[in-house]
Parts: sequence; C-alpha cells; structure tokens
Amino acid sequence: MELFEAIFNRRSVRKYTPEKVDDSLLHKIIEAGMYAPSAVNKMPWHFLIIRSADGFSAIMEANPNAGMLKQANVAILVCFDKHLQHDIGYGPVDCSAATQNMLLAAHALGLGACWIGIYPRQNRIDLLHGFFKLPEPIVPFSVISLGYANEEKKMPQRFFKDRIHDGKW
Amino acid sequence: MELFEAIFNRRSVRKYTPEKVDDSLLHKIIEAGMYAPSAVNKMPWHFLIIRSADGFSAIMEANPNAGMLKQANVAILVCFDKHLQHDIGYGPVDCSAATQNMLLAAHALGLGACWIGIYPRQNRIDLLHGFFKLPEPIVPFSVISLGYANEEKKMPQRFFKDRIHDGKW
Repeated sequence: MELFEAIFNRRSVRKYTPEKVDDSLLHKIIEAGMYAPSAVNKMPWHFLIIRSADGFSAIMEANPNAGMLKQANVAILVCFDKHLQHDIGYGPVDCSAATQNMLLAAHALGLGACWIGIYPRQNRIDLLHGFFKLPEPIVPFSVISLGYANEEKKMPQRFFKDRIHDGKW
Repeated sequence: MELFEAIFNRRSVRKYTPEKVDDSLLHKIIEAGMYAPSAVNKMPWHFLIIRSADGFSAIMEANPNAGMLKQANVAILVCFDKHLQHDIGYGPVDCSAATQNMLLAAHALGLGACWIGIYPRQNRIDLLHGFFKLPEPIVPFSVISLGYANEEKKMPQRFFKDRIHDGKW
C-alpha cells in the first residue's frame, strides 16, 4: 500500500471478524514498530503479544474503552524499559512513534487496529504491569487490538488550515 | 512510495543541499501529521513553519544537537494546545504520532528530515515558547528539519527478536 493511502485512510477499527491473524503479520507489524526513530536511537521498546481471554480482560479492566477486545483476535502491548530510554520522559515519546508505525503497518496488511491508551494513566500502567508480571523497569505504554475488520469506516476531514502558522504564530 | 519501504528505509538526514523545499510539499507533510490518531480524536496540534535564520538559531540554542539546521531549508515546529488535549500528558503522545507520520511523509516525498527533540526538556520548551511568542497554552513538542538530502544513509538492522514476548513475558 502506498504511504499516503495508508496515512490518509487508516482509521481506528473496533469490530473484527473471528478470522485468525497469522503470526507472520504480527511479526511484520512489530518489526515496523522497531523501525521507528527513538531519542538517541535507544530503541527502548518491548512488545508483548496477547491472545488470552484473561489478558484481554485485564486490559478491559484497565481501560474501560477497550471493549473492542471482546472481538479482537490478538493484541500487542507496547512497553518501554525505563533503563533503556534516553532519559526520563523519552520512552513514551519513542513508543508513540512505534505505535503509529504499527497502526499504519496493520492497515497496509489488510487488518483493522485500534490504539488502546495505557500511558499516561498510572492506574492503567500499574494494573497491566502487575497482571502481565512485567519486570520492574518495564512500563506498559499502549495496546494495539488487531483483527480483520468487520466494519467499514470512511476517513473524515482532518485537515484544518488554521492549525498551520507560516513564519510566525 | 510503498508504506513498508518508507518505514524500513527512513533515516534521520542531517545534511541537505541548498535546494528550496516547495510549499506544496510542506503542506502535504503537515497534512500527514494531521491524519495521525489522537486520544479521543482531540487533534490538539499546531504547526509552525520556520524559515528564518533567527528561528533556526533559537532552536539550535534550545537543542545543542540541532546543528543540522545550519544547512536545512526549512523546519516545522510541532506543538500541542494544553487546552485541546484530552487530558494532561496526552498532547505529547499525540504529537509524537503526528511527528512520525510527517517523517514518513517527508521521506516518501524525496526529502531528508530529522526529528529534533524539544519535549520533555522544560528549558527547551520555555526557550522556544518565548522566542516564537506562542500563546500561553501552546507547548512546543518537536522540530522537524527538512531539505533535500546531501548524504546517503543505509538502514542498520533494527529488528531484535528478544524484544518480542509471545503470550507472556
């Protein structure tokens, strides 16, 4: 898929068919995340593949807007390592760029995906950190739900010229 | 350009030819930023196009690693509005996804680009906020330097299998 088609037509997809997402697609999506830029190229990320109903339940408990997981085939938890990030506050910035690469990759691979926010809500971070038994320095940042889309969504207008300031504010 | 080619071959480019970057390309890059996802679709971003030597100097003063601006043709300051973001801490996450879309777009348009970090360094934020006379709720997040590449860079290996955890950590 052409880059601008991916950027301009990607939407949050929350309804999925039961069809299984092949592992090779998951790995391609994660690889796309790993090729995001990161501060001082520290690549502080880790990726946890989640397929279990228990895991989905924990995420839905952490984020009340994660009901799309009832239908999702699989999800990926994007985390960063506090000890690997360039400095405090950089891990989330890096993981956000990685998450965006992954959403574009999922769309280009014919999948529907949705970004489920974990960071910066401390209660969500703590709940998932405990449930998935993450090592101490690992911080859960986002969950990407994945499946084959069972809904069609058109892209609304998101270009607003008044957000561009040319030369000065 | 195909999405995965853009993701897997994009690099930080810091050397540029003097050739002018056309305004139509700048607007396409900013439009790509505006099509990033944002928490609760708040789209809290603003984009300031900078071409002046004074503006470049201010950025280089804020970030000592921004020397590539001596050669850059133009730069875009990505900001968020504290009053528009979904909640505290979400603006940077949204702006990071927008910045990543913009870096991919620049690459696909044949330009070289580099992400110059501003957030989360408060001294950098304050300096640029003052220099560019930004309204109170506007927070500078990143600068993207742009120009036609005057260097060739190969993508190093960034895929590390030990960062993938399948099913459990």
